[in-house]
Amino acid sequence: MSGIIECVPNFSNGRNPEVVDQIVQSIMAVEGVSVLHRTSDFDHNRSVITFAGSPRAVAEAAFSSIATAATLINLDEHEGVHPRIGATDVVPFVPIKDFTMSACVELARQLGQRVWDELHIPVYLYEEAAIRPERKNLANVRRGEYEGLKKNIHTPEHLPDIGEPLIGKAGAVVIGARQPLIAFNVFLNTPELHIAQEIAKAVRHSSGGMAGIKALGLVVNGLAQVSMNLVDYKRSPLHRVVEMIRREAQHYGTSIHHTELIGLIPQDALLDAASWYLQMQGFSTQDVLENRLFFSEDNLD
Amino acid sequence: MSGIIECVPNFSNGRNPEVVDQIVQSIMAVEGVSVLHRTSDFDHNRSVITFAGSPRAVAEAAFSSIATAATLINLDEHEGVHPRIGATDVVPFVPIKDFTMSACVELARQLGQRVWDELHIPVYLYEEAAIRPERKNLANVRRGEYEGLKKNIHTPEHLPDIGEPLIGKAGAVVIGARQPLIAFNVFLNTPELHIAQEIAKAVRHSSGGMAGIKALGLVVNGLAQVSMNLVDYKRSPLHRVVEMIRREAQHYGTSIHHTELIGLIPQDALLDAASWYLQMQGFSTQDVLENRLFFSEDNLD
Repeated sequence: MSGIIECVPNFSNGRNPEVVDQIVQSIMAVEGVSVLHRTSDFDHNRSVITFAGSPRAVAEAAFSSIATAATLINLDEHEGVHPRIGATDVVPFVPIKDFTMSACVELARQLGQRVWDELHIPVYLYEEAAIRPERKNLANVRRGEYEGLKKNIHTPEHLPDIGEPLIGKAGAVVIGARQPLIAFNVFLNTPELHIAQEIAKAVRHSSGGMAGIKALGLVVNGLAQVSMNLVDYKRSPLHRVVEMIRREAQHYGTSIHHTELIGLIPQDALLDAASWYLQMQGFSTQDVLENRLFFSEDNLD
Repeated sequence: MSGIIECVPNFSNGRNPEVVDQIVQSIMAVEGVSVLHRTSDFDHNRSVITFAGSPRAVAEAAFSSIATAATLINLDEHEGVHPRIGATDVVPFVPIKDFTMSACVELARQLGQRVWDELHIPVYLYEEAAIRPERKNLANVRRGEYEGLKKNIHTPEHLPDIGEPLIGKAGAVVIGARQPLIAFNVFLNTPELHIAQEIAKAVRHSSGGMAGIKALGLVVNGLAQVSMNLVDYKRSPLHRVVEMIRREAQHYGTSIHHTELIGLIPQDALLDAASWYLQMQGFSTQDVLENRLFFSEDNLD
């Protein structure tokens, strides 16, 4: 099983660094896995760890982190503003290189079976790995949270996709597969919240905008901000949504002040933007020197 | 000596694939070196091989290729339209990652000494590695070519930088260090040559344009084309020169039809273009997922 995938599990503890350290250690202990990023939020009482490597190693590390979190986190004592149903709340696999989405789905379901078999934690499958269509959307799976699930897990609506309707202090876990997402904010040359809100409404998918765009209007540091997740950046690319926002801003007599990336971004999203703006024809990511050097197995021309 | 450099030697044979194959083999035989690209031109009777790896390995492979070419190529029998003074004509080292230009200069001069000591081929140093300022420009070093050098190598103007003024059938070699260059063509929505020529004149350094831009106006496939080398793309970036051409084209009542890259491009040139057009603040190449995964030694946050 060659290729590289990423995993971005969310854990229900953002207040005790020693707990998160132990989870990180359990991931790093697996050979062939690199921890790329970690972040904890006190108010959310939640941590997000990003790691990557060969699919087999990443799946092993994901299991190990779920097992570790189950021994360290007690959902009966957890409070935080972010919705959650488990100690390990959500585990997405993300294809990065030479590994398909359907292989990630397969891996997610195998992991779910192992989590039930060995840890007796019930499993829900979401996004590309969903079996029940209404569970594709994570928000639906998490509705009612841990406290609601304890009461209702026996009902048909809440039966787990893998495992029996038995829930302990580690709660349940949502496992799935998705494309990498881009978190991207656009600041406008205006302090007016309603302009950011109107533009967010214009570009987001749920209100008629572009597929795969989630957007919210905010005011941050005195500037109106369109805060976005691009969940399908290959079909709805970054440059297109930025140019749509630029045009909408112009309509309101304002303009883009600057933009910012939150977290990491796949290389091809920026290469696509550059080649689009530069009007390059026939460009391929293999024309990038570093990609020839580091990413190619067969680099003799 | 960690880090990665590239080497792009030019050899005076573009008509006998078996000769070029042997030179490529001598490069590939060095552990830690990858051959990225090779190209041969019949009219020029010249081949260009691009390889990269650790600085020590790249220098070893460069020496090996010079030694191989000296046994296979006889300048007394060479003809081609491209100016040349040696079997191995020019050997530039290019810093790619975690290796400085001044270290490349040092490596070039060490290679030159070894070429004289072990192969008795006289060496000229050019670009960043030049000792005599007038030899910074390769065209000056090559003026008169092999045939002229055979007669004049004893004159003060032609004395080699390393070695004695003794020249055999392998000629001399020009060794140096330079930044990676970008070869980039911009096609206009017009067949008129003079517009491409006027725009080339406006953007190229030698006639008052941007530093590090070499440009020529041509007509290719019925479209006016501004054909460029960007030899200092960090100071004169791709997006800036493309936007300058866009504006000049507008002045002539035309526009950019499309653009094309020739050969390879360093990743940061395109990341800089993307972040400029997208107005990103605080962006770093380490925010690219693949760079965290593949390029970073210390990727634990």
